[in-house]
Amino acid sequence: MKLYDFVLAPNPRRVRMFMAEKGLEIPSVQINLRQGEQFEAQFKQDNPGMIVPALLLDDGTLLTETMAICRYLDALHPTPALFGSTPKEQALVEMWSRRAELEGLAGAAEALRNAAPRFVNRAIPGPRDYAQIPALVERGKARVQAFFDDLENGLSGQAWLAGEHFSVADITAFVVVEFAVNIEEQPAARHVHIARWRAAVAARPSAAA
Amino acid sequence: MKLYDFVLAPNPRRVRMFMAEKGLEIPSVQINLRQGEQFEAQFKQDNPGMIVPALLLDDGTLLTETMAICRYLDALHPTPALFGSTPKEQALVEMWSRRAELEGLAGAAEALRNAAPRFVNRAIPGPRDYAQIPALVERGKARVQAFFDDLENGLSGQAWLAGEHFSVADITAFVVVEFAVNIEEQPAARHVHIARWRAAVAARPSAAA
Repeated sequence: MKLYDFVLAPNPRRVRMFMAEKGLEIPSVQINLRQGEQFEAQFKQDNPGMIVPALLLDDGTLLTETMAICRYLDALHPTPALFGSTPKEQALVEMWSRRAELEGLAGAAEALRNAAPRFVNRAIPGPRDYAQIPALVERGKARVQAFFDDLENGLSGQAWLAGEHFSVADITAFVVVEFAVNIEEQPAARHVHIARWRAAVAARPSAAA
Repeated sequence: MKLYDFVLAPNPRRVRMFMAEKGLEIPSVQINLRQGEQFEAQFKQDNPGMIVPALLLDDGTLLTETMAICRYLDALHPTPALFGSTPKEQALVEMWSRRAELEGLAGAAEALRNAAPRFVNRAIPGPRDYAQIPALVERGKARVQAFFDDLENGLSGQAWLAGEHFSVADITAFVVVEFAVNIEEQPAARHVHIARWRAAVAARPSAAA
């Protein structure tokens, strides 16, 4: 196996935290997205989607999509459970993972990629160019703040997003909160549950991954 | 259990097809989104996210997010496997489900909700208002066409998206293709693998769900 990684991007960080929680080490290659290494011919040939993270399996299959990589690693190494154990817990992990992605991470990406000069014509990652749409900057920030309100609500009265056990939903939500620094959005003082939970995630060794 | 459903919306259709493949029947309530029933006080109280599909469990937990509902039902009724069996198949199901959602379904929703008068200030579903952004209409259509190209590629040389077995990824991709009629986008004549696969999905009894 070989992991295509970039240390400064949020989605690869999710995979690295997941691996750290499982105690896994996988040889990795850094693709420096800031220097445009994803556009280089060799990488494009290996990974036509031109995105990281991506996991190359020994049979030549290339897995893209953060959660597909995490599911693969989970199927091979089920302990500790990071996708939930009971049916209800599994569903709540999936629900919160989606909310963190579709509202939080998508909003933050929207705000960043439609504003920063380095993303001109690269408003969406991947092989195709998409023009920046300035109206998405404010909308993205509003979506991130809306996600913080939902997150605060979800964490009220319980240690972790899916209940008693730390899960991949906590990883994604934590990465959203950390990544939102890049769009100058952070949880507010009223988000007391987020503050408590964030400190608890940050104290886990995987947070350094 | 009680399923909040709306027969004309794409995400509830994914859940209904999933249930039909599993042979499950769950009492459901229609929430007519075209008539604004999601904004009515009772529904808002039961489901603060104001979205369908949503599954109310007997203990009062409300599951939102299509894939969270499907994961829950799958954990209770694992046969037939619709999330893949081997680690690799599970990963490919997740990868293609995400592509179908994040590129196909998101693109189609973007094109529809930023254009149609009934979605003024409702460019994103849920409890918060978001203004329409006209530039997203063309971008959404372009993303759907990009997804069709990826889908064609993914189906080349294999029966189903994750390989030999029908999965939830096929359900989502099929619903995208069918739903794209609403934004006047359809696969092209060159998409021969999509045409063959689409006919095969349409022939399954679940396609009528």
